[in-house]
Amino acid sequence: MSKPAASPSLPRLPRPLVQRAVADALAEDLGQAGDITTDATVPADRTIEATLAARKPGVVSGLDLAEEAFGVLDRHVVFERLIDDGRAAPAGAIIARISGNARAILTAERVALNFMGRMSGIATLTRTYVDKVAGTKASIVDTRKTTPGLRAFEKYAVRCGGGRNHRTGLFDAILIKDNHIVAAGGLSAAVEAARRNAGHMVKLEVEVDTLDQLREALAFDIDAVLLDNMKPATLRDAVAIVAERGGRVLTEASGGVDLTTVRAIAESGVDLISIGALTHSAPVLDLGLDF
Amino acid sequence: MSKPAASPSLPRLPRPLVQRAVADALAEDLGQAGDITTDATVPADRTIEATLAARKPGVVSGLDLAEEAFGVLDRHVVFERLIDDGRAAPAGAIIARISGNARAILTAERVALNFMGRMSGIATLTRTYVDKVAGTKASIVDTRKTTPGLRAFEKYAVRCGGGRNHRTGLFDAILIKDNHIVAAGGLSAAVEAARRNAGHMVKLEVEVDTLDQLREALAFDIDAVLLDNMKPATLRDAVAIVAERGGRVLTEASGGVDLTTVRAIAESGVDLISIGALTHSAPVLDLGLDF
Amino acid sequence: MSKPAASPSLPRLPRPLVQRAVADALAEDLGQAGDITTDATVPADRTIEATLAARKPGVVSGLDLAEEAFGVLDRHVVFERLIDDGRAAPAGAIIARISGNARAILTAERVALNFMGRMSGIATLTRTYVDKVAGTKASIVDTRKTTPGLRAFEKYAVRCGGGRNHRTGLFDAILIKDNHIVAAGGLSAAVEAARRNAGHMVKLEVEVDTLDQLREALAFDIDAVLLDNMKPATLRDAVAIVAERGGRVLTEASGGVDLTTVRAIAESGVDLISIGALTHSAPVLDLGLDF
Amino acid sequence: MSKPAASPSLPRLPRPLVQRAVADALAEDLGQAGDITTDATVPADRTIEATLAARKPGVVSGLDLAEEAFGVLDRHVVFERLIDDGRAAPAGAIIARISGNARAILTAERVALNFMGRMSGIATLTRTYVDKVAGTKASIVDTRKTTPGLRAFEKYAVRCGGGRNHRTGLFDAILIKDNHIVAAGGLSAAVEAARRNAGHMVKLEVEVDTLDQLREALAFDIDAVLLDNMKPATLRDAVAIVAERGGRVLTEASGGVDLTTVRAIAESGVDLISIGALTHSAPVLDLGLDF
Amino acid sequence: MSKPAASPSLPRLPRPLVQRAVADALAEDLGQAGDITTDATVPADRTIEATLAARKPGVVSGLDLAEEAFGVLDRHVVFERLIDDGRAAPAGAIIARISGNARAILTAERVALNFMGRMSGIATLTRTYVDKVAGTKASIVDTRKTTPGLRAFEKYAVRCGGGRNHRTGLFDAILIKDNHIVAAGGLSAAVEAARRNAGHMVKLEVEVDTLDQLREALAFDIDAVLLDNMKPATLRDAVAIVAERGGRVLTEASGGVDLTTVRAIAESGVDLISIGALTHSAPVLDLGLDF
Amino acid sequence: MSKPAASPSLPRLPRPLVQRAVADALAEDLGQAGDITTDATVPADRTIEATLAARKPGVVSGLDLAEEAFGVLDRHVVFERLIDDGRAAPAGAIIARISGNARAILTAERVALNFMGRMSGIATLTRTYVDKVAGTKASIVDTRKTTPGLRAFEKYAVRCGGGRNHRTGLFDAILIKDNHIVAAGGLSAAVEAARRNAGHMVKLEVEVDTLDQLREALAFDIDAVLLDNMKPATLRDAVAIVAERGGRVLTEASGGVDLTTVRAIAESGVDLISIGALTHSAPVLDLGLDF
Repeated sequence: MSKPAASPSLPRLPRPLVQRAVADALAEDLGQAGDITTDATVPADRTIEATLAARKPGVVSGLDLAEEAFGVLDRHVVFERLIDDGRAAPAGAIIARISGNARAILTAERVALNFMGRMSGIATLTRTYVDKVAGTKASIVDTRKTTPGLRAFEKYAVRCGGGRNHRTGLFDAILIKDNHIVAAGGLSAAVEAARRNAGHMVKLEVEVDTLDQLREALAFDIDAVLLDNMKPATLRDAVAIVAERGGRVLTEASGGVDLTTVRAIAESGVDLISIGALTHSAPVLDLGLDF
Repeated sequence: MSKPAASPSLPRLPRPLVQRAVADALAEDLGQAGDITTDATVPADRTIEATLAARKPGVVSGLDLAEEAFGVLDRHVVFERLIDDGRAAPAGAIIARISGNARAILTAERVALNFMGRMSGIATLTRTYVDKVAGTKASIVDTRKTTPGLRAFEKYAVRCGGGRNHRTGLFDAILIKDNHIVAAGGLSAAVEAARRNAGHMVKLEVEVDTLDQLREALAFDIDAVLLDNMKPATLRDAVAIVAERGGRVLTEASGGVDLTTVRAIAESGVDLISIGALTHSAPVLDLGLDF
Repeated sequence: MSKPAASPSLPRLPRPLVQRAVADALAEDLGQAGDITTDATVPADRTIEATLAARKPGVVSGLDLAEEAFGVLDRHVVFERLIDDGRAAPAGAIIARISGNARAILTAERVALNFMGRMSGIATLTRTYVDKVAGTKASIVDTRKTTPGLRAFEKYAVRCGGGRNHRTGLFDAILIKDNHIVAAGGLSAAVEAARRNAGHMVKLEVEVDTLDQLREALAFDIDAVLLDNMKPATLRDAVAIVAERGGRVLTEASGGVDLTTVRAIAESGVDLISIGALTHSAPVLDLGLDF
Repeated sequence: MSKPAASPSLPRLPRPLVQRAVADALAEDLGQAGDITTDATVPADRTIEATLAARKPGVVSGLDLAEEAFGVLDRHVVFERLIDDGRAAPAGAIIARISGNARAILTAERVALNFMGRMSGIATLTRTYVDKVAGTKASIVDTRKTTPGLRAFEKYAVRCGGGRNHRTGLFDAILIKDNHIVAAGGLSAAVEAARRNAGHMVKLEVEVDTLDQLREALAFDIDAVLLDNMKPATLRDAVAIVAERGGRVLTEASGGVDLTTVRAIAESGVDLISIGALTHSAPVLDLGLDF
Repeated sequence: MSKPAASPSLPRLPRPLVQRAVADALAEDLGQAGDITTDATVPADRTIEATLAARKPGVVSGLDLAEEAFGVLDRHVVFERLIDDGRAAPAGAIIARISGNARAILTAERVALNFMGRMSGIATLTRTYVDKVAGTKASIVDTRKTTPGLRAFEKYAVRCGGGRNHRTGLFDAILIKDNHIVAAGGLSAAVEAARRNAGHMVKLEVEVDTLDQLREALAFDIDAVLLDNMKPATLRDAVAIVAERGGRVLTEASGGVDLTTVRAIAESGVDLISIGALTHSAPVLDLGLDF
Repeated sequence: MSKPAASPSLPRLPRPLVQRAVADALAEDLGQAGDITTDATVPADRTIEATLAARKPGVVSGLDLAEEAFGVLDRHVVFERLIDDGRAAPAGAIIARISGNARAILTAERVALNFMGRMSGIATLTRTYVDKVAGTKASIVDTRKTTPGLRAFEKYAVRCGGGRNHRTGLFDAILIKDNHIVAAGGLSAAVEAARRNAGHMVKLEVEVDTLDQLREALAFDIDAVLLDNMKPATLRDAVAIVAERGGRVLTEASGGVDLTTVRAIAESGVDLISIGALTHSAPVLDLGLDF
C-alpha cells in the first residue's frame, strides 16, 4: 500500500455532525434498556485499557467518531491516537489506546467500530484505486451514491484514502444529465438555462455519451464534462478534443470502472475518474478492540 | 436465485422511522440551495413517467423508503409496485413505476436509489447465503455490524433476503462474550449474574471458543451458544455435545464464514450461522431509474 | 419497607436518553423567557447548598436525571449522592446534597423533582408489591402501560423497586393476545405463524383466558403464558397443568391485581405477576429541596 | 359525576406538539423491529372495526392524540368521536369508533390508550375535586408538578376536567417563594425586584406562610397570594385580610389538599385551590379497545 | 447614547435554547464538508488571540451565543467578556477577547457575529427609542413580529436595550383584536368569553381603534388596552378616559411609531409604546473580529 | 420598481426545510397552551376568507412558508396565490387568498407574515439595488451575513429580488481572506494550499485589499477576486488589470456599498457587488391579513 496522504490536507469533520451521528448511533444500539449484558456482568467501577487494532491492513478513518462514542458514555475515558486518519495501518497495528471505565468502553465498542470499520473500508478501497493510477494525472473521486445520513463521513473517508470529493449534493454544483437535457429540450437549452441561473461560485458539468455530444457541450462555458461509459480509446479521443479547445475543461470518466480497468482509463489522460463503488460497495475494514 | 420468501412473513418497517430517515436523507442531498440543476433546466409543471429497474438480478428491498422519498417532494406522485420487497427481480425487471411531477421525481431519484440499492444489496447477498445452505437446518442470521443509523432497515433487508434477525441491539438479548467473562471473574459468574438480572422475556447466549468452554456453559440455563471461529469438524462435535444435553440450546456458528465455507459449516448441524458481512460488506444492487 | 435490592443489579440508564429527556424537560419549563422569578430576585453570583430530602419514606430512583438537570444549567454544580437509586429512604432522609450557583439550582429544582418524584413513586409502589409477595416464587413485573416518552425511565424505576421488566415494547418479544388469535384464525395458527417468523433471540408468550386455552397453547413451543383475569384457585390449576408438561413454560398472572389480592395470587405458584398500576397509577413520592 | 364543562371553552392542543408527541411515542413502542406480534399473525390487508370504551366512569381527554396515533400508521383509518374531550363517559360507554387496517389499529392501540388513559385520569380526578367544591367560589387549579415532556397535555386534561390552569412554566408568570425571598434579602426586596423586571403582561404572585407575611405582601402591587399549608380557619382570616384591602388580589390555597379537606378549604372563601396530585398522582382512567 | 441598564435586571437566556440555536447555526454554515478554506490554509495546531470589537457605537447583546459557538468547536477556547450584554460599546471598543485554536476561532467567527450583530442591532435600536422617551412614563415594548426561531433571543435583546417585553407568544397572554371581536359577535362577547376561559395568571388586553370602543372595553375587567393607530391628541384623551375609571388599566400605543413620532406619543401619557420595528427592521450592529 | 425576474429561474425551496422551519415557528408561537385568545373567542367551526395584501409596494417572497403554516393547522385550508414569489406587488395588492377554518387562519397569521414579511423585505431591497445597477454588467449578490437558521430562505429571497447567490456557507466554495493568508504564511502559500486541497467542483476566490495584492493573486489559477473596500476609481483599475490577464477571473466589489454608491461601483465594470445589508439589515415588507 502506498504512503498515506500528508495529514494537513485532511479537513476537519464538522463537530455538530459528529456529535449528532454518535448520539444517534448510541441511541440505536442502546435502545431503552441499555447494554443489559455489560450491566449485568461488569462491575460499575471496573477500569480497563483497550487497544483498537487493525486485523487487516488498511487506511485509518473515523477516529473523531470513535473518540466521541467513548466520551459520551464516560467523559473520563482517555483516547490516545497512534495512527491518524489518512495513515496506513499494517495488519495487527494498534491504531488507538482507550482506557477508563470498563462498562463505558465495552458498551461503546460496537458503535465505534461500526463507524471506523465502514469509513476505513472506504479509505482503504480508495487508496487501492489511487495506487493503481499512480503516475497518471487522474484523480479518483467519489459520487453521491453514499449511505443515507452518512455522506459527510463517507466523503471524508474518501479524502483519507487519497481520493478527492465530487460535489457534496444536489446543491453545490450543477451536473446536467440526460434527463435534464431531454426535459430542457436539448443540450444547448439545458446548459444555457443552467448557466443563466447558476450562482457565480457554482461549477457546471455536463454528462455526455458520445464525442458528438462532447463537441456540442464544449461550445458552452462549462467547467467539466462527464464522459459516461466510454472505452479508454474513446476517452483518449475525448481528451484530445477537449485539449484542442484550450483544455480548461476538466474531463471525468465514469461507468465501468473497476480495479482491472482503472489504469487503462487513467492512461487515457482524463483528469478525474469517479467511482460509485468507493462508497456504495466498499467492504468494511476489519478492526477489533482488544482488552 | 431461489424463490423468494413468502411475503406474509415480512414485517412492516416502523412508519416513524421511515419518515425520519427519508426526511433526513433528502435534507442531506438538497442542502439549503436544493436541486440547482433540475430547478434550472426542468420546467416546474413538466410531468414524467419513470420506471425503477434492476440492472442486475437481485432481491428487492426498501420500496417503502423510495415511495416516501418521492411523496415528500410531491404528494401527488404515483408509485406503483410491480415486484414487492422480498421478491427476486431478474436483470432488467421493472420493480416499480413512478409518475408525476418531473422535478420531484428527478430530485428524489438518488435518495430513493441509495436506500433501495443498499437494502437490496443486503437482501441479495443474504439470499445467496440462504441458497447455499438450502436443505440444511441452518438459518442465516445478521449481527450488530450494521451502518450507524440504518440498522432497522438493514435488518429488514436481511429478512427480505430470507435470513433471520439476531438481537437488534444491546438492549433486547444478552450475549456474553470473552470480555464479560473476564470482567465477571469467569464464565459461571458471568452467566449467573446475567440470568439473575435478565428480564424473563430476554434470551441469553454465551460465546465459547472451545469445547471445554461449551461444556461449562451448558451447565447453566442458557438459550444459545455462539461457537466462535470453530472449524466444521469442531462444530459437529459441539452440536453433538449440545444434543447430549437435551438439545434445547441453539447452536450458532460465527467467524470465518464466506460463500466457500458456509455450506460445510451448515452441514455441521448448527442451527444458526451469523455473518457480519451481510450488512457491513454487501455490495449495492445496481438499480436505475429510466424515463 | 424491605431492604433494597443490591445495587450491582441495577442497569445504567442509557446516557443519550438521559441527556435528551432532561434537555427537553428544561426547555418545557423554561420556555423562551426562562425563570423570570429567579432572574429577577436572585443575584447572578449567589451560591447555595441544598439538600434533596424524602418527605415520606420510599425507594429512590432517578438520580442521574436530577444530576443532569442541575449540570445543564451550571456545570460547576456539585451533586453528591447519599442514598443511591434502589435504596430505601426513610421519611426525612437526605438523598443528595447539591451545591453551587443559586439560580441554577432554583431553576432546575422542579425538573429534577418531577423526574425523581415520579420515578421514586414507581419504585416505592413496586417495592410494596415485592414485599407483599416475599417468600413466594413470584416476581413483580411491569407492562407497556407507561407514560409516553418515559418508558425507559419508568421501567428502570420498577427495577429500582425490586421488580423485573416485562418486554420493553412491541419489538423485543412476542405476546399473542385475543385479537391476534382471532385475526390469525385460531390460537394454533397464531402461535405457529409467530414461531415461524420470530427471531431466535425473541421469546414468545401467549395470553389465555381459560384452562382449555392454556392446554391448547402448551402444545406449542412457547416461553410463557399470560393467565388473564384468573382467580387464585384457577391460577393454581393452571400452574399445575404447566408443571405436568415439564414446567419450562413461565406462568404470568395479570388482571385484578392489587395490594389486597397480590399475595393470594402469588401463593398460587405463578412465576410472574404483571401490574399496569406500577407505572400508570403510582402516586408520586413526595420529595423536596431544602436550602 | 357532574355535567361536563361546555366544550367551547376547551382550547385546541397545539398541532405541532400533538404530532411530535405521537411520533415519539410510536417510535418508543415500535423500536426498530416494529410490532413483531401483529406482523407475524395478522394479514396485511385485514380490516377491522374497533370501539374505544370506558371500563370505568370518567371524563374523556386526549382524543386528538389517539386519532393521530392511528392516522400515522395508516392515514385511511377512520376515527369517529362519540364522546368529546371534556364530557363524562359512563362505565361501558363507547367514546370513539375506529375502523380500517387491522395491523395499524392493533399496533397503535397501546400508544392511543396510554395517552388517553393518563389524560382522562387527570380529567376525572380534576372533575371529582371540582364537584366537591361546587357552589363555592373556588376554582381547582393545577401546578408545575407534571410529567416531564407532557405538561401541555396534562394541563389540557385539567381543563377537560373543569379545572383551570396555573402558570404553564417558569416563564409566563412570577411566583415568589421562600427561597427567592431569602436570596433577595426579604419579601419586600424580592417583590420590588420582581415588579421592576416583570413584563407588563406578566402576573405576580407571592407565597406566604403566615398572616404577618400576608400583610407584608399586600403592601405591594401583586396579583395573587399563595397561602401555603394554612388550615381552613387561617385561610378564612387570610381571605378577610385581603378583602379589607380591596379584594383585587386573588387568594390561592395550597398544601394538604385532598378529597376530604378540599370542601372545607373552599368554604374558607379562597379563589383558587392548587393541587399537585391532579397531575402527579392521578390514577389512569381504565379504557379499552374492543374488536 | 444613554447609560446602559443595570445588569441585574437582565434575565438569563435559557441554556437549552442557546445550545440548540448555536448547534443549528454551525451546522447550517458548515454543511457536510466543513470550513474548506480554513482547513486548507490554516495549520491544525495554530493558536491565535482575537478581539471582538464594535465598529459602530451600540448596545451589546448575545455574548452567550458567541461564547457557545467558539466553545462547540474547541472547548479549550477562552472567551473573556469586557463589555457585558446590556452595556453600551463606543465605536472601536473591544467587547470580548477570544483566544485558542485558530481554526476553531476562524470557523465560528461568522456564526458568532451573525447572532451578536443582529441582537446588538436590536438592543441598539431599542436603546435609541428608550432614550427618546426619557423622562416620560412610557416604556418601549416589543411585539410578536420577530424572526421565526429566534424570538427568545430577540426579546432578550430588547431587554438589553432597556425595553420591556410584551407577551412572548400566543400562549402567555390574551390580546383581543378586531378579528376576534368580529368572530365572537362583538367586543363584550369577546371579552367575556376570554375572561371566562383565561387562566387566573393570564393578563388580558383589548385592542381598540376609537374612544368609543375604549369606553366599551373599560366596562370589563381588563388589564390593558392597545390604542391602535391613534394620534397623540387622541391618545391623550384615551389616557384621560382610562384615568377617570381608576387608572388600573395599562395604556399601550401602537402603530405609526418611529423615531420622529415616539416622543410625542410618549408625552400623551401612555404607559407603553409597542414597536414592531425593534425586531423586524433593526439594522445589524457592525461588529468585527480582529486578529 | 422594475419588472420582476421571470419565474422559471426561481429555485424550489427544499421541502424538508420548509416543513421543519414552519413546524418550529408554530411551536415557538403556540407554546404549550396554544392560541388562548382565539380559542376563547372564535367558535371552533367558524370559517372565513382572508386576503394577504401588501401594505407597501414590494417584491413577494415566501409563499411556500405561508401556505405550509396554514396547512399544518388545518389541512383543508385553501391557499390561492395571486402574485407569485419574485413578482412585484403594488401597495394594496392582494398576494394570496386564504379560506377555511377561522381559528387555523387566525392562529397561523403571524407566523405566515413573519416569514413573508422578512423574505419579501429582502427581495424588495435586493430589487432596489438591482434596479440601481440596471444597464451595467454587475450582478447584486448576497453574503453569509444571514439570520442564523434562515439562510436558505434569505438566499432564496435574494433570488426573488433578482439578485444572485454567493456561496451558501463555508462548505461550498473557498474564499481566502486576510486571516487565512496570515495563517498560511502569505498569499501564494494560501492559494496553493487551497488549490491543492479543493475539490474540482469547488470555486476559489481571494480577497485583496490593494492592486499589488491583486496582481499577486492573479498569478494563480483562481476563479474570482474580492476587491475589498476599494473606491470606484481603484475598482476600475482592478478590472483593467484582470482584463489584461485574459479576463476569466470574476471581479467582486464589497464594502462601503449602499444605495448612493452602488451605481458608481457598478460602473467601474466589476462583475459582482456583494452586499451584507441585503440580509442583515433589510427592513420588513409591510404585509397584512384582511378578513
